[in-house]
Amino acid sequence: MTAIESIAATLAAAREAAVVSHIIPDGDCLGSTLALALALRQRGAKVVAVNADPVPEMFHFLPGQETIIPPARVTEVPGLLVMVDSTDMERAGEGFSRWRQKTGTVINIDHHVSNTRFGDLNLVDGRAAATAELVFAILEKMPVTITPDIATCLYTALATDTGSFQYENCTAATMRLAARLMELGADLPRIREYLWERKPLAGIRLLAAALPTLTLAYDGRIAWMTVSGTALEATGARPEDAEGLVNYPRSIAGVEVGLLFRELPGGQVKVSLRSKKSVDVNAIAARFGGGGHRRAAGCTVKGDLDAVVAMVVAAAGEELNDGRFH
Amino acid sequence: MTAIESIAATLAAAREAAVVSHIIPDGDCLGSTLALALALRQRGAKVVAVNADPVPEMFHFLPGQETIIPPARVTEVPGLLVMVDSTDMERAGEGFSRWRQKTGTVINIDHHVSNTRFGDLNLVDGRAAATAELVFAILEKMPVTITPDIATCLYTALATDTGSFQYENCTAATMRLAARLMELGADLPRIREYLWERKPLAGIRLLAAALPTLTLAYDGRIAWMTVSGTALEATGARPEDAEGLVNYPRSIAGVEVGLLFRELPGGQVKVSLRSKKSVDVNAIAARFGGGGHRRAAGCTVKGDLDAVVAMVVAAAGEELNDGRFH
Repeated sequence: MTAIESIAATLAAAREAAVVSHIIPDGDCLGSTLALALALRQRGAKVVAVNADPVPEMFHFLPGQETIIPPARVTEVPGLLVMVDSTDMERAGEGFSRWRQKTGTVINIDHHVSNTRFGDLNLVDGRAAATAELVFAILEKMPVTITPDIATCLYTALATDTGSFQYENCTAATMRLAARLMELGADLPRIREYLWERKPLAGIRLLAAALPTLTLAYDGRIAWMTVSGTALEATGARPEDAEGLVNYPRSIAGVEVGLLFRELPGGQVKVSLRSKKSVDVNAIAARFGGGGHRRAAGCTVKGDLDAVVAMVVAAAGEELNDGRFH
Repeated sequence: MTAIESIAATLAAAREAAVVSHIIPDGDCLGSTLALALALRQRGAKVVAVNADPVPEMFHFLPGQETIIPPARVTEVPGLLVMVDSTDMERAGEGFSRWRQKTGTVINIDHHVSNTRFGDLNLVDGRAAATAELVFAILEKMPVTITPDIATCLYTALATDTGSFQYENCTAATMRLAARLMELGADLPRIREYLWERKPLAGIRLLAAALPTLTLAYDGRIAWMTVSGTALEATGARPEDAEGLVNYPRSIAGVEVGLLFRELPGGQVKVSLRSKKSVDVNAIAARFGGGGHRRAAGCTVKGDLDAVVAMVVAAAGEELNDGRFH
């Protein structure tokens, strides 16, 4: 039996399960969580969908998102734990890995190469553009109907994790799955509206505030912008409005590494890292306790904004120069 | 015989042809032109690819783009004229329709609903996301190989005319064709690089200059930005760098019609119009002598920037209010 078949069989037989994903949830994390939760509920299982952080407003259209609760509100840990899109159990929030002792089987479905294979059953495939591709492969092997609601969740995951089908991770298989999900009834009008056509005015004002901070270094091969706490406050933008901003420095001609630095409360800075061709930003993020993929990664660093910019840009510069000799 | 088959047969038999498209060329116009030109050359035909305007730098990776010449440089009009992505022959540039008398057969391949069916053979289908979808359907019926170069041209057309697979026009058929073109060898690394990862720094500076002009009216349902001639000059941006800016006003929550006004030399203003759900911007553009699609259209209006803004916004407001009662 392949990993897909084992997981499908285990899920098909489940009476109860928790589906859990990582903090600061994105489209793939939420789409994969909800697609699985909806499929398991369709089988009559008692399912709890868990995320430590609230669902960002742009994903409030996802079917079932209102059922997602934080770990603290789960009174009894079910015997089956399904983790999606998470490199390790700590990604679900501090202390979450203690659930390991309380549950029975742990299923681990992920597309991050840095996944620690922490599950009893592991489906980890770095070639998948999104964890949602793996979830679809599992659902196909289960006696469930892929409903329009499930298709909506999975399409959202594909569209967001590929940057609207633009990134290197997007393959012919991804495009073909997107086509199938359209035909299965994915609610494209709602997806379009929420993902791309409902940008909060405050988010555009935040972009207008961030663009003047654009700086290039290392012969224009590293570019970054910063979002200070005061800029966030002045524009009335929410933290998630800053999410896409890293694409601006990244998209500039000649830039290999694009960075966004966002000031967090409590003297921390959230760093988003993106690269185009040669630099492994996962390695840069890992130096600061973060992680992700070769072309997209993140980390949170203690220190004031300027100091963190200096440190991370220097580290990126080293990776850039290393890359020359590879 | 269907229109596709008639056109495929005519093209397969052609010894010489001109492939022509509209001024201010975009990805669909260029991708469709070049895919056809490459296929006809493969058949041994003598082909001239024609465009009145230079190919924008972001499309300089398209195979064969260096062969595109303006109509004035065509010394002898061939007996077969293939117009792509053009609602009428005047779209190819002022005076171009005089070619009508000099050529033999005119083939018209287009996905604009406002197409005037000016050809001897017409393949006009408003359901196609891009003219490139129709070109692919024709090539499939011809004794030609869809080479990686042709696939690159067609993929570029799909990706640009759907706003990276986001717009309403993007269907399951579009996604599936994109998958096929990937498998046929479309050069995705180059496509990604040129379309999305080589934005000129001056273009980002132009965005920074345009964002502060963002204005909302009609209860936030119409939003626009302006690009003055001086802003263009001050940032060193080229006119084509302004092309995508209309998406910023359009993408804001609650906005139905997004507009971009760009000052042209000689007291004219180029207006780009986009809508989300209810307003037919083709109708607004038509009031000012322009055209396009229901959700994306354009026109060029004589007058100074402020006057044109006032006129077009008022017209958009009327369409908006009309829409309420439909």
